Amino acid sequence: MFSPKDSEFESRVRESFSRQTIMQTIGARLASVSPGEVEIRMPVRPGLSQQNGYVHAGIITAIVDSACGYAALSLTPAGCEVLTVEYKVNFLAPAAGNMFVARGKVAKPGRTITVCSGDVLAETDGRERLVATMLTTMMVITPEPS
Amino acid sequence: MFSPKDSEFESRVRESFSRQTIMQTIGARLASVSPGEVEIRMPVRPGLSQQNGYVHAGIITAIVDSACGYAALSLTPAGCEVLTVEYKVNFLAPAAGNMFVARGKVAKPGRTITVCSGDVLAETDGRERLVATMLTTMMVITPEPS
Amino acid sequence: MFSPKDSEFESRVRESFSRQTIMQTIGARLASVSPGEVEIRMPVRPGLSQQNGYVHAGIITAIVDSACGYAALSLTPAGCEVLTVEYKVNFLAPAAGNMFVARGKVAKPGRTITVCSGDVLAETDGRERLVATMLTTMMVITPEPS
Amino acid sequence: MFSPKDSEFESRVRESFSRQTIMQTIGARLASVSPGEVEIRMPVRPGLSQQNGYVHAGIITAIVDSACGYAALSLTPAGCEVLTVEYKVNFLAPAAGNMFVARGKVAKPGRTITVCSGDVLAETDGRERLVATMLTTMMVITPEPS
Repeated sequence: MFSPKDSEFESRVRESFSRQTIMQTIGARLASVSPGEVEIRMPVRPGLSQQNGYVHAGIITAIVDSACGYAALSLTPAGCEVLTVEYKVNFLAPAAGNMFVARGKVAKPGRTITVCSGDVLAETDGRERLVATMLTTMMVITPEPS
Repeated sequence: MFSPKDSEFESRVRESFSRQTIMQTIGARLASVSPGEVEIRMPVRPGLSQQNGYVHAGIITAIVDSACGYAALSLTPAGCEVLTVEYKVNFLAPAAGNMFVARGKVAKPGRTITVCSGDVLAETDGRERLVATMLTTMMVITPEPS
Repeated sequence: MFSPKDSEFESRVRESFSRQTIMQTIGARLASVSPGEVEIRMPVRPGLSQQNGYVHAGIITAIVDSACGYAALSLTPAGCEVLTVEYKVNFLAPAAGNMFVARGKVAKPGRTITVCSGDVLAETDGRERLVATMLTTMMVITPEPS
Repeated sequence: MFSPKDSEFESRVRESFSRQTIMQTIGARLASVSPGEVEIRMPVRPGLSQQNGYVHAGIITAIVDSACGYAALSLTPAGCEVLTVEYKVNFLAPAAGNMFVARGKVAKPGRTITVCSGDVLAETDGRERLVATMLTTMMVITPEPS
C-alpha cells in the first residue's frame, strides 16, 4: 500500500473524473478510490460494440486507462496532473458480460514517471472473467512555481 | 504493397465496419480501404473528452485499432475474422483538432498472426499533427472446414 | 495454479533451456520450474553493462523473456514449441545488484496464444528491488499430425 | 529530418556507446549516427542463441534498444543522458542471418520524453529481412543546474 501525499486525493480524483465526458457517454462511474488503486464500473449498453456485439477494445481500454491514470493521480501532490504517455493492452477473452470492472493500480510511483497496471473483468451472473490486462506509463505534471 | 487474397476485400471490410456500433456512437466513418491499409476519419464532437477537453485516449485508440484490424482483414481470404490480440499506443501530443484521421497499415501479414502499425493525426485548419502511434498484433481466425 | 498437460513438463523446459547458448554466455541458470511459473537467476558479471555500468536492458529482457516463454511451455502438451510474438517491458529502477531474478508467470494459457507476465528483481545484500516488469504474448506451435 | 541541438552529437553518442560493455560482448558496432537516426550492426556469432539456434530475442532487443536510445541522444543538448522508460517489440521472423542491422529513429523528440521506433533486419547473402520492430519511450535526463 502507498501513502497519499495529499489527504484530499479522493476528491481530486472524483473532480477530474467528473470532467471526463466520455465516461458519461459510455455510462462508466468511479466506484472506488484508494491510495494507488482505483476501480471504474461500466454496465453493458448498446452502442459500444465491435462487429460481433462484444464491447469494442477501445472502450475496454478507455475505462482501464482512466482507472490507471487516477490510481497514479491519487498518489501525487495537490495541483499535479497525470497524462498517459503510453499503454499496452492484451485482450484475453471476448468482452461479453453485464458489467465491466476496470481496476488500475500503481506498480511504481515516481516524481515524473509512474508505472501502473490494470485489469478489466467482465461480470456475468455473479461470475468474473478477466478480459484485458494493461501495463502503462503515466507522466506526472507538476505545476511550475510562479 | 500487398496483393489481396480476396477481390471482395473492400465490401467485406465495409460490411464488418458497419456492424461496429461504437463507430456510429463516436461518429467515425471508414474513409478508404486498400489492400493492407485502411483510413478511418472522426470529426470532433462533444462527449468524447478526458478531463482537459481533449479526446480521450481510449477513443483515439478505438479508431486506430479498427483501422489496423481492417487493414489486416483486407488481406485475409474470404470468410476469415480478425481479432485484436494486443496493442501498444504512444500518445505524442494532446488530441485537439477538428478531425481525427486514423491510418492502419499491415507491417507483416501472416496466416495466424498479422502485425500492424497505425497513426492518428489531428487536423486543425488544414494542418496535420501526429497525436498517437500504435503497434499491434492481430490474430486471423480461419473458419474450420466443415 | 495451473495443471500441466504433460507430466514431463520440467524436463522438457530444462532440456530446451540448456540449448539457449545465450544463457550460458550471460551466466543465467534455470532456478525453478513449476506449472505456469519459471524462475531464472543471473549473478552480475562484467561485460553485460550499458553506459553507466548497469546491466543492459536487453539482458534484463532476455532473462525475463526466457522465464515467461518457459512458463508458457510448462503448460503445453508434449511436443509443442513456444515462440515470442511480442513483449513490452517497463524499466522501473537501474539494474544494479549482485543477483538478478526473473520470474515469469502465465496470465492466460491458450491453445495458440498464451499471455504471460514477468518481473525482474535485483538482489543486493539480501534486499530485493523490482527493476523491470514485462507483459508478453507467446505463441504455442503444435506439431502437425503426420 | 531533425536538427541537432549539439554539433558534437556524434562524438557524444560514440563515446557513450563505447562504454556499453554488452556491445563488445555480443560483437555489435555503431555503424552510423545522424541526427535522430542510428544504425548498429552485429555479425552472427556463437553463444547468442535461443533453443533453435536463432539469435535470442533479448539480444535482438539489445541492439535495437541501443540504436533507439542513441537516436534520442543525438538530438539532446550536450550533457544530457537518455534512459529507456519502456519498449514494445514484435518479432516478425526467426532471427537467422549473417548480419543483424538495427535502425533506431526518433518519432517525436521532447524535452523530457522522446518516442522512437526501430527495426532489426537480418542480412543473408545480400538479402534483407525484417525480423523485429520496436516502439519505445525514452526519458531525457537534463543535468541539474549547479
